[in-house]
Amino acid sequence: MAKKNTAVSPLAPKQPPHIAPLEGVRFSSGAAGIRYSDRTDVMIALLDEGTTVAGVFTKSKCPSAPVDWCRAQLRGGKARALLVNSGNANAFTGKVGAQAVKQSAKLLASAAGVKEKHVFIASTGVIGEPLDATKFEDVLEPLVQKSQPDAWLEAASAIMTTDTYPKLATRKAHIAGTEVTISGFAKGAGMIAPDMATMLSFIFTDACIGAEALQAILSKETQSSFNAITVDSDTSTSDTLMLFATGAAKKRGAPKVDKATDKRLADFKRALREVMLDLAHQVTRDGEGARKFIEINVTGAENAKSAKRIAFSIANSPLVKTAIAGEDANWGRVVMAVGKAGEPADRDKLSIWFGNIRVACQGLRDPGYNEEEVSQIMKKEHIVVRADLGLGTGASTVWTCDLTKEYVAINGDYRS
Amino acid sequence: MAKKNTAVSPLAPKQPPHIAPLEGVRFSSGAAGIRYSDRTDVMIALLDEGTTVAGVFTKSKCPSAPVDWCRAQLRGGKARALLVNSGNANAFTGKVGAQAVKQSAKLLASAAGVKEKHVFIASTGVIGEPLDATKFEDVLEPLVQKSQPDAWLEAASAIMTTDTYPKLATRKAHIAGTEVTISGFAKGAGMIAPDMATMLSFIFTDACIGAEALQAILSKETQSSFNAITVDSDTSTSDTLMLFATGAAKKRGAPKVDKATDKRLADFKRALREVMLDLAHQVTRDGEGARKFIEINVTGAENAKSAKRIAFSIANSPLVKTAIAGEDANWGRVVMAVGKAGEPADRDKLSIWFGNIRVACQGLRDPGYNEEEVSQIMKKEHIVVRADLGLGTGASTVWTCDLTKEYVAINGDYRS
Repeated sequence: MAKKNTAVSPLAPKQPPHIAPLEGVRFSSGAAGIRYSDRTDVMIALLDEGTTVAGVFTKSKCPSAPVDWCRAQLRGGKARALLVNSGNANAFTGKVGAQAVKQSAKLLASAAGVKEKHVFIASTGVIGEPLDATKFEDVLEPLVQKSQPDAWLEAASAIMTTDTYPKLATRKAHIAGTEVTISGFAKGAGMIAPDMATMLSFIFTDACIGAEALQAILSKETQSSFNAITVDSDTSTSDTLMLFATGAAKKRGAPKVDKATDKRLADFKRALREVMLDLAHQVTRDGEGARKFIEINVTGAENAKSAKRIAFSIANSPLVKTAIAGEDANWGRVVMAVGKAGEPADRDKLSIWFGNIRVACQGLRDPGYNEEEVSQIMKKEHIVVRADLGLGTGASTVWTCDLTKEYVAINGDYRS
Repeated sequence: MAKKNTAVSPLAPKQPPHIAPLEGVRFSSGAAGIRYSDRTDVMIALLDEGTTVAGVFTKSKCPSAPVDWCRAQLRGGKARALLVNSGNANAFTGKVGAQAVKQSAKLLASAAGVKEKHVFIASTGVIGEPLDATKFEDVLEPLVQKSQPDAWLEAASAIMTTDTYPKLATRKAHIAGTEVTISGFAKGAGMIAPDMATMLSFIFTDACIGAEALQAILSKETQSSFNAITVDSDTSTSDTLMLFATGAAKKRGAPKVDKATDKRLADFKRALREVMLDLAHQVTRDGEGARKFIEINVTGAENAKSAKRIAFSIANSPLVKTAIAGEDANWGRVVMAVGKAGEPADRDKLSIWFGNIRVACQGLRDPGYNEEEVSQIMKKEHIVVRADLGLGTGASTVWTCDLTKEYVAINGDYRS
């Protein structure tokens, strides 16, 4: 089995941001012995009455049992509790998996005095092993008792698997003149598997927003944040992103907003976008074995969808990722990745930049570029690759990390 | 720049097959100093009058100049000469690239006394550097002079880049009672880039088959051979597969066949399929850093197309490939790869085997399997992974290799 990492990613933020209590939510974490004894492996969040909820889940056709559960409960639009465990993903566990989720929800509902259907569940860890929900039996009540509004860092740390640092973000926004807060955390380092790295993220706000509007906003903002990052092109069966709105700011004068298109939500959307992008970047920066944070800008594509496909083709290319790991400005591999995307491209209109230096234009090497300058750019920790297709106005930005020997070691060295 | 490998892949055949002369084709190779001096970097094949030709090329939207040239000349259906160079791919070289191809064709046409339009060209090597065709000027005439019908091994060796061994295959077939031969060679180890590994393959036969029929047969057989392998999911701008039929067997009584559906070609198709699969497997076995040859069988999918997409999703998954490198029967990652393919899949109908051992069925771990037996299977050099979707009769097989630290080293260690 893979070990937890000890060395923090060199791309980690210097320290996690301090997150102040957010009215309407409390956290607690502990050890349920899901897979290992004496390891923090369970986290709960308790939400005040009136909390609305939205969620976005893995696109996998083989989702985990908790993903099935959350999708079903989401229809009600209300949430009172969240239970997250690491150590076991409860994925590919058949009917016993669905039963384990139901039992977990029941246990937390009972401990927290809420309805089962208002309990949301996420699990990360080994696939294909039955999750023994009875392990939560003696744990949840004490966790409910000791839950605290300021335990953000503990909550973010409790859900980590191969993550090398906890990932938190917070922003303020104004809705019709009243200040609201959006704070959240995330985990994820590769994309899946035994003790490996599903992406989970939970975001909380005291804004008062109807569930339908909340869902529309979350779904939209996901496209350019959590759905615009890739570590290794693999997709977990368990990816879960949830947004909870406690509505507590209403007491301070914030209006209840029920339409996603309501203009009073403009600043809220901006702040949510920032929180989501911040967390998505932190996930990418903790990609297994990552030494470089890579931003891929595609411009001039036929349309935005085409631009995003091309950007992902570059971001997922093992040859591009190993070249950047080797600090080599290998734009030939970028051309290759544009070409293999299957999207409209005209070789002789293509231009490529590393950082601010154009290395290729109109179908051949830019005669003007200085190798030494490019080489300096490649030594940086944050590498920006831009490809302009010269065809239209479609643009997209995605983020990834490099592919290093450490990635292979983390994911392949089971027998060492 | 990447160095040529010195250690032969552990997955290489013990020795290359001996290939006897095939009437109507002669080979020659030498050093033109394309990128390095004193390195064999040019190979020519000379074909007798009456040779028909078919070709399949990269799907890249940014193909190399030689690919453009071959596609255009292929319309005539006739071939008299082939020029292949390594060291420079002549890809992303704009108009000067097209000029260099034309000049190369002109030089070989003149040296061999054939028409320019009957000369085919393939190039592999660095991308984005202009190819200086004048380097062929003094080289081609002597090469034509010394061309030999038995220089198969030299020809196969001359086109190698990061390949660790030459790849050759040969089979016999009967067309209406007359024996014909199909022999060929290939190169390719990763998928692209400076000194890296485009897939090139040239196959020759003395059968007498019209160009249109030859193309139909080659295109079809490519689907289950060269288009069913992957090393790293990347696609070269220069991939080229050509089949030349000299027609020399006509003198020995072989009929001229002009229809791909002609039943007299059944055995020829079988033999061609074997040659192509043999070469495609050899390319996979020489995948950069490969230590395991992996066969992915997908059965029970909704249809064959869906099965192939799922098979490639498994074959290209870095997490599956690193798990196999680590000799870990990590079927959770296979579930993940099935799920992310985007094709119809029902988690609770899915079964997975490593070798002949079923490790998962009907949505959960097979309770009967023996860990020790599976562990023995994972130690083998040839790993067979099977996934049955339980939905229909669609089936597909693809081949790949594992993902090792050596892959990252070969493609990323530019600065070491």
